[in-house]
Amino acid sequence: MNIYDVSKKANVSIATVSRVLNGNPNVSDKTRAKVLAVMEQLGYTPNVFARGLGLNTIQTIGVMCSDSSDLYLANAIYYLERDLRSNGYDSILCCTGYELETKQKYFDLLCSKRVDAIILAGSKFIELKPKDNSYILDAAKKIPIMLVNGYLEGSNIYSTVCDDQAAMYEAASQLIKSGHQKLLYLYSSTSYSGMNKMQGYKNALADASLSLGPEYIHQCRKDIMASKELLLSLHEKGLDFDGVLTSDDSLAAGAVKYAHEAGRKIPEDLSIIGYNNSILSTCTDPELTSIDSKIEALCTTTVNTLMGVFSGGNVPSRTTIAADLIKRETTNL
Amino acid sequence: MNIYDVSKKANVSIATVSRVLNGNPNVSDKTRAKVLAVMEQLGYTPNVFARGLGLNTIQTIGVMCSDSSDLYLANAIYYLERDLRSNGYDSILCCTGYELETKQKYFDLLCSKRVDAIILAGSKFIELKPKDNSYILDAAKKIPIMLVNGYLEGSNIYSTVCDDQAAMYEAASQLIKSGHQKLLYLYSSTSYSGMNKMQGYKNALADASLSLGPEYIHQCRKDIMASKELLLSLHEKGLDFDGVLTSDDSLAAGAVKYAHEAGRKIPEDLSIIGYNNSILSTCTDPELTSIDSKIEALCTTTVNTLMGVFSGGNVPSRTTIAADLIKRETTNL
Repeated sequence: MNIYDVSKKANVSIATVSRVLNGNPNVSDKTRAKVLAVMEQLGYTPNVFARGLGLNTIQTIGVMCSDSSDLYLANAIYYLERDLRSNGYDSILCCTGYELETKQKYFDLLCSKRVDAIILAGSKFIELKPKDNSYILDAAKKIPIMLVNGYLEGSNIYSTVCDDQAAMYEAASQLIKSGHQKLLYLYSSTSYSGMNKMQGYKNALADASLSLGPEYIHQCRKDIMASKELLLSLHEKGLDFDGVLTSDDSLAAGAVKYAHEAGRKIPEDLSIIGYNNSILSTCTDPELTSIDSKIEALCTTTVNTLMGVFSGGNVPSRTTIAADLIKRETTNL
Repeated sequence: MNIYDVSKKANVSIATVSRVLNGNPNVSDKTRAKVLAVMEQLGYTPNVFARGLGLNTIQTIGVMCSDSSDLYLANAIYYLERDLRSNGYDSILCCTGYELETKQKYFDLLCSKRVDAIILAGSKFIELKPKDNSYILDAAKKIPIMLVNGYLEGSNIYSTVCDDQAAMYEAASQLIKSGHQKLLYLYSSTSYSGMNKMQGYKNALADASLSLGPEYIHQCRKDIMASKELLLSLHEKGLDFDGVLTSDDSLAAGAVKYAHEAGRKIPEDLSIIGYNNSILSTCTDPELTSIDSKIEALCTTTVNTLMGVFSGGNVPSRTTIAADLIKRETTNL
């Protein structure tokens, strides 16, 4: 049962059936009544996708994320779907992995489906080389591109970002003020968000006139065990550190395990600060002080901005949301 | 730019354009060439959703879950999307929450969009009262309904389940064989999966001729702190227990926190077993022994079964996958 059957039975064109479905006023009352009667007779339910033919919208948003099983992104997907649906939009989910080529392929795929907009969830979509982002700029000529905690300058591109730099600056500064001198920084990604966090750490050190060598900054896989092993190896090499700041709770959870294994007391001998305030922050013992990066607010704002774009409002191309430092047991602040 | 523009410019009907798009042989070579030339001239990209009009498939699967931010379901969403996409299908995601009425509403919404099938991820969709499942049975008359770790008997309904009962039976039996007599059972849900897990626990006790009262079985919110508080209150009431079996790692993580606070040594004084082998199981200290419920295998099998249904193969209506007991530091097995 489809629109062809209705058109044939009602003896009108498919375009007319489509106009009736879309509430287009350009159909006579008589024809409209005939088409509706046939639809009822045939038990035809309009296929909303078919509206993509007649309307400019299929009421569907493409949502891309690198990995929906990541704790942060899983929450993003949840909030985005919830808020899009409450506005009457479906989400087509696309988990792309981390390779640029695959991201581009899926992005093109979503564009070819004529989605009404694409939301890129997480900061992994913006590349450092401008030419690697040109496919996004091109797509933005046709549909709005929304970035959740990523930033790219361009027409019809809208970013909602967490102020990661200020959050990490504040966390590092509080540790310094409470007497810490040797702050280690662990990060997993060189994304927009990742670079901002690191800059916050560096600025806090500079403003406190603390000078620490590159041996105090380490990249680490977003994995509890990898973080623990890295810290144990730094400890064995004799590196002296009294605080660990991290770009993700999983790295901080690894730091807790390191401290237990190395026999260091938390927070007396070692302070630890996580990021994202995930379920991991209450799972470790002691519980993690962590930066709440406000993923729900980021997603809600992204969807609200998108609805503003659709309704032709004057919406900001960039919105920044402040993070919160949630103090628990791995610091004494 | 849409199919109407192409039809107008090529001076053919929309039906003809649609036939060309769908590779329908019922179009002359001359007409096909004309339509393709116009599409190229106009820069028209076919909207795959529009194929829903002409084909019986829109190559889109509705995926429903109660909450995609739940650790288990976040993984399910990830694996389902990945495996559907590798078969050329999109996923429309629907996070329904836990209310029956909302679940039904979203289910009907997906059906109205003429998705090719609906996958219900997680065991929260099947209700205990048969009449509450009738909407699923009705929908199955039109499209395949796939259940990931849920079970409902009916035509065109396919279940892939983890053998939760056998897994919990084995875990409890191993604890009993290693000398435990007072095994507490914590669960959060009375779903199909939840009831099977509990039955496994009960059967293990019965087969070992252990008789424990109802005070050894407790329902608890799927939350680390709720579990910790519940166990502390049972401890204060003087309940004697030497092992805790749980339906989810979060409850087991709470049990670890309880043991630390109550000064009980793990696993010497208290053994703890989690479920789902999630990231929490390596986050606690000591790390959780946990049952790997094989979510990736469940999802891959679900998608393979669905592809078998689409290709008209003779596929089983129910597939059972065995779980694994992953032994870590909260037991001495």
